[in-house]
Amino acid sequence: MEIRVRRTGMLRVAALPALANGFLPRFAGHFLTERPNLNFALVGVISPIVIDWVVNLQCDLGFAEAPMAHSGLPTIRMPVLPRVAIMPEGHRLCSKTVLRPRDFECETFISLTPGSVSRYLIDDVFAKHSVRRDLRIETTLSEIMCGMVSSGLGVSICDPFTAREFVSRGVVSKRFVPHIDFEFAAVFPPQRGPSAVAEEFVAAFAEHVRANAEGDATF
Amino acid sequence: MEIRVRRTGMLRVAALPALANGFLPRFAGHFLTERPNLNFALVGVISPIVIDWVVNLQCDLGFAEAPMAHSGLPTIRMPVLPRVAIMPEGHRLCSKTVLRPRDFECETFISLTPGSVSRYLIDDVFAKHSVRRDLRIETTLSEIMCGMVSSGLGVSICDPFTAREFVSRGVVSKRFVPHIDFEFAAVFPPQRGPSAVAEEFVAAFAEHVRANAEGDATF
Repeated sequence: MEIRVRRTGMLRVAALPALANGFLPRFAGHFLTERPNLNFALVGVISPIVIDWVVNLQCDLGFAEAPMAHSGLPTIRMPVLPRVAIMPEGHRLCSKTVLRPRDFECETFISLTPGSVSRYLIDDVFAKHSVRRDLRIETTLSEIMCGMVSSGLGVSICDPFTAREFVSRGVVSKRFVPHIDFEFAAVFPPQRGPSAVAEEFVAAFAEHVRANAEGDATF
Repeated sequence: MEIRVRRTGMLRVAALPALANGFLPRFAGHFLTERPNLNFALVGVISPIVIDWVVNLQCDLGFAEAPMAHSGLPTIRMPVLPRVAIMPEGHRLCSKTVLRPRDFECETFISLTPGSVSRYLIDDVFAKHSVRRDLRIETTLSEIMCGMVSSGLGVSICDPFTAREFVSRGVVSKRFVPHIDFEFAAVFPPQRGPSAVAEEFVAAFAEHVRANAEGDATF
């Protein structure tokens, strides 16, 4: 039996890893279930490449970490959520409700690669509070960080999306003060206005992020 | 208090997404807990970039999908495991123990991007069995595929490592026949012999994969 349905269009989305590792694909799945005639592609790449793909019209819509290197792109800011402290189940810090920089003194801390926005923001807070961490482990992706944390190796500060993906896999999330906000934005190609379905996707996703954040202190 | 411990070396590993999204980071975490003086970096990138990073000496060790485009690299084949069929919890196919190509007739199938080894191997099997799937959804990463499957949107064939990461997140894995093997290998820089710790990491990881595969029909 040949499948022939009328397609009402195509939506190509590029998204940064923090969204691509679970939260955004689930949202996209629900969005597409309600739109059986829409063709869809979702690319998971790091933020600078998200921008490249949008600028080069390989995607209709991108989600990238803010602030962005490329200015002048049509952009919609998304809801801002604070990063969370993460630790393995059973870690001494699990008993606290809110974690502060001094709680991390001497802890093995799993860092993102030097040069990333996250690494800069996080190191800055610990430096300002004169907290020394043991920094021998580095990785490029927050999900690698979470996987290592779950093994019991150490602790970290993580975007709230990835941390939540690891709740069922041995990682505990706690509020961290001072807030280190995780900011991202939707970007559209500068050559043409966003398609109706791209705008719809962004509006529904922003609402979905807001709805998930409400009532969850670590989100 | 300043942290000063004697470091006994540095190990930089690059790994393909199927391993980087959980399975390998957890293994690495345990490996490092037993080696508190080893500095460690783990980079998650697609297989062609794994090879690049190893060839350019940015990493001491890489794990990439086989067969590899680049020949002449020192390589150690890793244990071969079959890909698995994945579907959302509650899907009609969950009642079966083993899935075959004809079970996918008319199903919404979430594909990896054209051009990937996985896409080719999987499409080839369905073509040989003359099974028509609804192919309107594409993505670059098996974890995006799993995230979409968990939403109820459709089904797919997935590497066993990523599928296992989604067991706690709404994805059911089943054996698939005929087997579509997922093959990967460890690669070392061609310019020099692998370091002792890199060889140790590969041997221990191969053993870990084998131990996890035993007694798990979908792994």
